[in-house]
Amino acid sequence: MRATLLYGAGDVRVETVPDAGLVEPTDAVIAVTKACICGSDLWPYKSMEPSEVGRPMGHEAVGVVEAAGADVRTLKVGDVVVMPFAYSDGSCVFCHEGLHTSCLHGGFFGNADVGGAQAEAQRVPQADGTLFVLPVGKDDALMPSLLTLSDVMGTGHHAAVAARVGPGKTVAVVGDGAVGLCGVIAAKRLGAEQIIIMGRHADRITLAEEFGATDVVSERGAEAVEQVKKLTGGYGVHAVLECVGLDQSMETAIGVARPGGAVGRVGVPQGEAMPASEAAFFENVTVSGGPAPARAYIEELLPDILDGRIEPGRVFDRIVGFDDVPNGYRAMDAREAIKVMVEP
Amino acid sequence: MRATLLYGAGDVRVETVPDAGLVEPTDAVIAVTKACICGSDLWPYKSMEPSEVGRPMGHEAVGVVEAAGADVRTLKVGDVVVMPFAYSDGSCVFCHEGLHTSCLHGGFFGNADVGGAQAEAQRVPQADGTLFVLPVGKDDALMPSLLTLSDVMGTGHHAAVAARVGPGKTVAVVGDGAVGLCGVIAAKRLGAEQIIIMGRHADRITLAEEFGATDVVSERGAEAVEQVKKLTGGYGVHAVLECVGLDQSMETAIGVARPGGAVGRVGVPQGEAMPASEAAFFENVTVSGGPAPARAYIEELLPDILDGRIEPGRVFDRIVGFDDVPNGYRAMDAREAIKVMVEP
Repeated sequence: MRATLLYGAGDVRVETVPDAGLVEPTDAVIAVTKACICGSDLWPYKSMEPSEVGRPMGHEAVGVVEAAGADVRTLKVGDVVVMPFAYSDGSCVFCHEGLHTSCLHGGFFGNADVGGAQAEAQRVPQADGTLFVLPVGKDDALMPSLLTLSDVMGTGHHAAVAARVGPGKTVAVVGDGAVGLCGVIAAKRLGAEQIIIMGRHADRITLAEEFGATDVVSERGAEAVEQVKKLTGGYGVHAVLECVGLDQSMETAIGVARPGGAVGRVGVPQGEAMPASEAAFFENVTVSGGPAPARAYIEELLPDILDGRIEPGRVFDRIVGFDDVPNGYRAMDAREAIKVMVEP
Repeated sequence: MRATLLYGAGDVRVETVPDAGLVEPTDAVIAVTKACICGSDLWPYKSMEPSEVGRPMGHEAVGVVEAAGADVRTLKVGDVVVMPFAYSDGSCVFCHEGLHTSCLHGGFFGNADVGGAQAEAQRVPQADGTLFVLPVGKDDALMPSLLTLSDVMGTGHHAAVAARVGPGKTVAVVGDGAVGLCGVIAAKRLGAEQIIIMGRHADRITLAEEFGATDVVSERGAEAVEQVKKLTGGYGVHAVLECVGLDQSMETAIGVARPGGAVGRVGVPQGEAMPASEAAFFENVTVSGGPAPARAYIEELLPDILDGRIEPGRVFDRIVGFDDVPNGYRAMDAREAIKVMVEP
């Protein structure tokens, strides 16, 4: 089968690899009908040391079950499914608590162990717990939005939940990438009164406004903090969605939080230590978040997608076939595309 | 009047200074009947650069109102009061939200502007919002416990609230100082099932066990983390009360938290950046807390003290008069005393 591998910074290749197959009796294999490139794929794309074996890429997919192991009980060949970016058994203590990313028997896609989803097929460990059967056909027009349940929409929602967004709250979203845009959707969906998008790309800002952003701040650093305070009576916002992961964005996130407010961070931190920790302390700003338990949120978000109340699939502004995957990475890295969908 | 001033690391002096007096019409002046030395006083005691003017010390007191400004409405001369370590107007948006330490017209005691409480008298700005009238006489036997409402008991409670302690939860308390010990009281009071005290001073550990600690971990660093995991089925605790503020203690706090757990930090951070931020992120560990809104918690905690259900005053294991205040600092810094009460 064809699959995407990263051999080092900037070196994405689509190659023929052995077909994905069942390994454990709890595995399934899905034929990937749509995958995508994630903002987090851009970190190794920018910085990975050259490798001779290559790293399988991709962790977001919708597809059709083409094989199920002997112990798989809830899935059958032909089921149309969405695959969250982490696999999880659905039965351990952390899955029961809704934190599927910390599943005792779980793990993540996009590595040598389980392979990656930017491929024709994907082996899915813990298939019963991981995959969610969709009530639509594989070519349904809603499929781009359903694909976002594998990561970005769940991640934007997680940021909003971690930041304690609720009715009447003021919200800032740091970062206008696909996750930030889904964060805007999530904040509006949870009842936020004011949603300030912090970013500087015209196309993304326009989409953020269509998703429900009420204000735009395009400055950076101290000027950005000042602008957000101006927009919020001098206090800052109740809830900040940190959707980048850089030190500067985290500093901004803490800087725009109102005393007693909360930062929900979902941008993978690029540093071991958290800046502005002291500032957060003195204003009693809570810092929460982490990898989103996307699996946990599907039940809650799915009806809103099926009924058309939210349209997170609009973050996809480019579709590539396999031959164009390297170009898709380049376009996302150059900010020419918000989010790239891959169709095998 | 006599007052305590710090002139540099290790250089505590009790001197005669001008009497505390009313400055603003919203001020009161209290005759301090009991004050104390705080763990946070030990940071400047260890590290302050030599100063020619000296810094007034102390921010915790009970006392008797001896003068009230023209605009003070709720207090009268002779009222017995407890004074939280921050002053606050009680009427601004943050006071209404219970975050008195971020009061728009508030500030902190123990500085050149308002003076310090390790003195015969203390000027109290925003007296109506700040002072809480106690329903007992100034020499009541409960007064040591009531004095802890000015800081340590409120701070231990804040750590527990920030760490989301509740019925059935597993809790670790990092630090066996007076705040940590009050954190044990708070955790038990809020229904924690297991309370692990992390410390190594025999007298403090004994008191922690009397306050409700169920387990003791005296190791440090990675060994401490391993011990806590052993005590909690391998997972770590739901709630961590970080009552120290050093990088090492924060690393330990994050290390012993269970995935999805929370660290409530009240130890004043001694570093600008927070260590182990990445580790917290990947396990979705929330970091919350800051200066405790001690004023907000008095209503909730007072009945338990008056009824004898909690006895936080037991953290005081030494009483000094004014002449012995320098010795009190030395004893606390040397860990010879848990917490020192100052009686003018």
